[in-house]
Amino acid sequence: MTDTVVLLSGGIDSAVVLAWATSRGRRPRCLSVDYGQSHRRELAAAAAVAAAYGVPHEVAAVSPRLLAGSALTGGGVIPHGHYADPAMRATVVPARNLLLLAMAAAAAVRDGAGAVAYGCHAGDHPVYPDCRPEFADAAASALALCDYRPISLDRPLVGMTKAQVVGLGVALGAPLGLTWSCYEGGDVHCGRCGTCVERREAFAAAGSPDPTEYRA
Amino acid sequence: MTDTVVLLSGGIDSAVVLAWATSRGRRPRCLSVDYGQSHRRELAAAAAVAAAYGVPHEVAAVSPRLLAGSALTGGGVIPHGHYADPAMRATVVPARNLLLLAMAAAAAVRDGAGAVAYGCHAGDHPVYPDCRPEFADAAASALALCDYRPISLDRPLVGMTKAQVVGLGVALGAPLGLTWSCYEGGDVHCGRCGTCVERREAFAAAGSPDPTEYRA
Repeated sequence: MTDTVVLLSGGIDSAVVLAWATSRGRRPRCLSVDYGQSHRRELAAAAAVAAAYGVPHEVAAVSPRLLAGSALTGGGVIPHGHYADPAMRATVVPARNLLLLAMAAAAAVRDGAGAVAYGCHAGDHPVYPDCRPEFADAAASALALCDYRPISLDRPLVGMTKAQVVGLGVALGAPLGLTWSCYEGGDVHCGRCGTCVERREAFAAAGSPDPTEYRA
Repeated sequence: MTDTVVLLSGGIDSAVVLAWATSRGRRPRCLSVDYGQSHRRELAAAAAVAAAYGVPHEVAAVSPRLLAGSALTGGGVIPHGHYADPAMRATVVPARNLLLLAMAAAAAVRDGAGAVAYGCHAGDHPVYPDCRPEFADAAASALALCDYRPISLDRPLVGMTKAQVVGLGVALGAPLGLTWSCYEGGDVHCGRCGTCVERREAFAAAGSPDPTEYRA
């Protein structure tokens, strides 16, 4: 019986959330969402991460057209460089977290789980409006009231930097080598897009060997 | 240019919300959601209502499995009788409004619209947890923070009974004869399920001729 629906993108953050949930004795179930992301490679990574923990994994779909307009959904060129760069706003997928959390809440109510967990962290805030703590607080209030039984919203990484997230993942034995970050969606991480740059920097700052193969 | 995304189910309430938006000089765009509802007939009704106002209408889909477990999504027999009956809880679709509002918010951000409007009303509260005003307030807070620009959540019917909703619709000239309520999903309203009973009572209480053909 599932008690926590973990939103699993296939990236580092949500893999660490799954590791956290497992370490706390939760019985998680993982939900990934196919919203037409150009980096679909992450869905296979999510399946591999869930399989590493032997937990159920479900992929739910939503009309891609709804989230059109981002560089991540076919709406333009994926910028290279650092997340702090204003150009990185092109990678915002409008209202994505609200939609993902609503889908996870539906799965939680359906399965009788009392919690949804997701991997927002402190490094996300500057560029992504729906990663701000005040958004997460409002979403938590909505999840608490969307059914007869309240659904709680776990954000175990909320105060952490990306390097701290990697550090926690390593400490918990999360299979970070199975995760996928790159927005380019090739067979190998490009090493140049915002999330590849952040991934590299985080492993270096955490002082952990980076298991990732980068093209550049 | 759209300024308001109206969630249009094909039923009376959302048709009246569309009439309200139009009467206020808004430039609405309508969104219906295909979530595997057994009463799919309502999607055609939504298209007819939008066409009557000459406004754009979009149908977005989400994996039906996510909302499984309700009598309205193939999870059991649709109860006959009155909404006040505890048996009507079988028609709750878990977390549906949160999911619909999140999808509408995504469309609003995508299209540059500053508002989402939906038809929750006072008659809905007792049986549907996600129709409670406190849920709507929490959802409104989440929509206000999900993007750089706040999305407002209009609930023009929130204080009204179903009869008052019908009265407002008649006063605004809403094409209520094009709407569809019945959960049974046949060609003609069954006249016996909770929403048919409520529909009949509302027209009677509003003192308006009921344009609906009922089988029983």
